[in-house]
Amino acid sequence: MSSTNQRAFNFNAGPSALPLGVLQTAQEQLVNFNNTGMSIMELSHRSKDFEQVHNEAIARLRTLYAVPDNYEIIFLQGGASLQFSMIPMNFLQQDGQADYILTGVWSEKALAEAKLFGTPVVAASTKDHHYKHIPAIDELNLNDAAAYVHITTNNTIYGTQWKEFPATTAPLIADMSSDILSTPIDINKFGLIYAGAQKNLGPSGVTVVIIRKDLLDKANTHIPTMLKYSTFTENNSLYNTPPTFGIYMLGEVLKWVEAQGGLEKIAAHNEAKAKLIYDAIDESNSFYVGHADKESRSLMNITFRLADEELEKQFLAEAKEAGFVGLNGHRSVGGCRASTYNAVPYATCKALADFMVQFQAKH
Amino acid sequence: MSSTNQRAFNFNAGPSALPLGVLQTAQEQLVNFNNTGMSIMELSHRSKDFEQVHNEAIARLRTLYAVPDNYEIIFLQGGASLQFSMIPMNFLQQDGQADYILTGVWSEKALAEAKLFGTPVVAASTKDHHYKHIPAIDELNLNDAAAYVHITTNNTIYGTQWKEFPATTAPLIADMSSDILSTPIDINKFGLIYAGAQKNLGPSGVTVVIIRKDLLDKANTHIPTMLKYSTFTENNSLYNTPPTFGIYMLGEVLKWVEAQGGLEKIAAHNEAKAKLIYDAIDESNSFYVGHADKESRSLMNITFRLADEELEKQFLAEAKEAGFVGLNGHRSVGGCRASTYNAVPYATCKALADFMVQFQAKH
Repeated sequence: MSSTNQRAFNFNAGPSALPLGVLQTAQEQLVNFNNTGMSIMELSHRSKDFEQVHNEAIARLRTLYAVPDNYEIIFLQGGASLQFSMIPMNFLQQDGQADYILTGVWSEKALAEAKLFGTPVVAASTKDHHYKHIPAIDELNLNDAAAYVHITTNNTIYGTQWKEFPATTAPLIADMSSDILSTPIDINKFGLIYAGAQKNLGPSGVTVVIIRKDLLDKANTHIPTMLKYSTFTENNSLYNTPPTFGIYMLGEVLKWVEAQGGLEKIAAHNEAKAKLIYDAIDESNSFYVGHADKESRSLMNITFRLADEELEKQFLAEAKEAGFVGLNGHRSVGGCRASTYNAVPYATCKALADFMVQFQAKH
Repeated sequence: MSSTNQRAFNFNAGPSALPLGVLQTAQEQLVNFNNTGMSIMELSHRSKDFEQVHNEAIARLRTLYAVPDNYEIIFLQGGASLQFSMIPMNFLQQDGQADYILTGVWSEKALAEAKLFGTPVVAASTKDHHYKHIPAIDELNLNDAAAYVHITTNNTIYGTQWKEFPATTAPLIADMSSDILSTPIDINKFGLIYAGAQKNLGPSGVTVVIIRKDLLDKANTHIPTMLKYSTFTENNSLYNTPPTFGIYMLGEVLKWVEAQGGLEKIAAHNEAKAKLIYDAIDESNSFYVGHADKESRSLMNITFRLADEELEKQFLAEAKEAGFVGLNGHRSVGGCRASTYNAVPYATCKALADFMVQFQAKH
C-alpha cells in the first residue's frame, strides 16, 4: 500500500481482517483505558475495569447467539488445535467410542488427537471426493452410544461449509473456528462449540467455547487442571490470567456485530459478499473453476483454480500488485482462496470480483 | 485518575505496567502496521511481515540473555499454569521421580499437576516458615536420578526470590514468570526456563520457554501434539496460529530492555527501585513489617504488613485515593504488596516510598 491511510484488500484466511472501527477504538484506548491511567493490558485481570470487559463480552455473545441458560461460555487459549486434544481428554473413555466426520484436514487433525485417548470412529468422510462436499445428513453412520459426534462446520482449505446440522443422539461437538457468528444457528443442537478467535471474533490467542452444562458432569476428572473444561466454567475463565487484550478485542468485535444489526444482517451481508465472487467464477465460462461443489460452498472461504499453474501464478502476482492480500490457497493444496469473513467489507469483495473479470478479459 | 494523560502509579502483580514508550509505539502502529494497510492483528502468521516480528523477538531474547545455541526459544499459550502440566507430561515417566522445591503457592500448584503423571518428591520446602525465605542450597535433598528439579525463582505472593541457583545433576527447570529478564543469569545452569509474559515481558497470553535441546530427545512422545515441546521447537512456534499481537508486544518490550542498556542496567535499576520501598519499611521502626526474610527479599514483589488490619485497610484506601494501583496483597494472604517489575518507573517507586513515610507520620 502506498498511502499510510489506505486499507489493504485483506482476504487472509486467519488471522484476518478486523472491523476498521474496532481497530480505531482500540487504538484510541490503547494507552489509557477508561480513564484508568493504564492500558487495558496493564490492568489486573481481577480488577473491576477488566472484569466488566470480560463479563460484557460473555453477555454479548450469549445475547447474539441466544445461548440458553444451560450452556456456559468460556475463554481459553491454545486455539482449536488444543481443543482437538481437550475434547477427547475430557469426554472420551479409553474404551469409549466417538464419531468423527471428516470434511478436511482440520477434522483429520482432530481425529488424530482423539486416537491418543480412545477409539474414534470415522462416521463419514468425503476425502475420496477431495473434500469437495459436506456429506448428506442421511449418509452419516452415527453410533447412538458414541461419547460425542465431532464435525468441522466450515473447511477453510477446501471452501466447504455445513448448511444444516444433524440431530444427533450423542452430543454434537463442532469446530466453528472459521464460521462462528457468520449466521444464526440453533445452539440447542450442539453439546459443545469451539472456535479460535482469529477469523470472525478477534485477534489470535483466544479460544471461545460454548458448552452444555450436562457434559461437564460426565467429563473425565483425572486430567490436568488447565485442560479441564470445569476449571474454566467454575472460575468464569479466570482460574489463571486470561489473554486480557484478546478478550477486550473480542468484546469490541461483538459490539460491532451488534451494531451491524445482529446475525441475520451479518448472514445476509456475507451471502451478498460471497455471491459477488462466486458469480465471477460461475460466469467465467470455466476460466475460474471453484473447488467446492455448489451445494457445499462456503460463505467464508471461496476456493478456486485457474486453467494452469502458470496462469494462477500470474493471477496471484497481479492481484498482489493491485493491493489484494492473502489470495494464495493453503500451502497444502495450492490454487486461490478468498476468505470473506464477517469483517471483510462488501467493497473489498466487489473489488476482487471486478479484478477477476478484468484479469480474465486480459488473458 | 482525573487527567486523561496522567499515568497511574501501577504496582499490579500481573498483568502489570508496560513501558509507556512501548504502548505509544503500539498505539501508533495499531491500525496500519509497517505500511501494510493492515493491523499487526490482521496479518497472516505466515506472512513475511509477521515472521520478521516473530523471529526478531526470538533473536533479541537470545542476545539479551546470551542464550547458547544448544537451547531453543519458543512461544506458547496457557500461561505458567499450563506449563505445570506440560513439564511432567513431557519429562516424567509414570515410575519416574522429579524433585520439587516448594517456596510458595505456585510451586505447590506445579507439584500438584506432576502427581498426575509420576512421583514428584518435595526436595525442600519453607512452608513451615510461612514461605518467608528461600531454602539454602546445601539444604536441598536432591536426587541425582530425578528426571528434573523444579523451582520457582520468584514468589509473587510472599515476596521472596532465589539469589543463586543450585548446580544440579538433573536438569533444573525454573518458573521465572515473575522475574524473567530482571537480572542477568547464566542460562547454562538450566534445562528449561518458562515464564508467562504478563509481568516483565509483555501482555498476558504468551508464554516464553527456553529449553535445552537434549531434553527434547528424552521427552515422552505419546502425548497430545499441542502439549509437546517438540511441536513448538520443530515448527518455530508456528505449528498453529500463535498469539501474534502478544508476540509483537513482547518484541517491543525486548527492544525497550535493549534501549535501557540491557540486563545489567535493568538489574541495577530494579535494585535501586526496590531499595526505596524496602528502606521505607526498614526505617519505619516496625510501623511497616516486611514479610520476607531480608536475605530472601524479592526485587520484584515487596510484601509488607501494618500493625493491624484496620490500619492496613486505611493505608490501602488512602493509597488508592492518591493514585496508587495494585497494592493489595494476594487474596490468599492479605497485607500489602508493591510489584516493582522492570517497567515500573523509579519515580513511581519513589512516590510510594514518600507516601509510606507520610502515611506513617500521620498515624
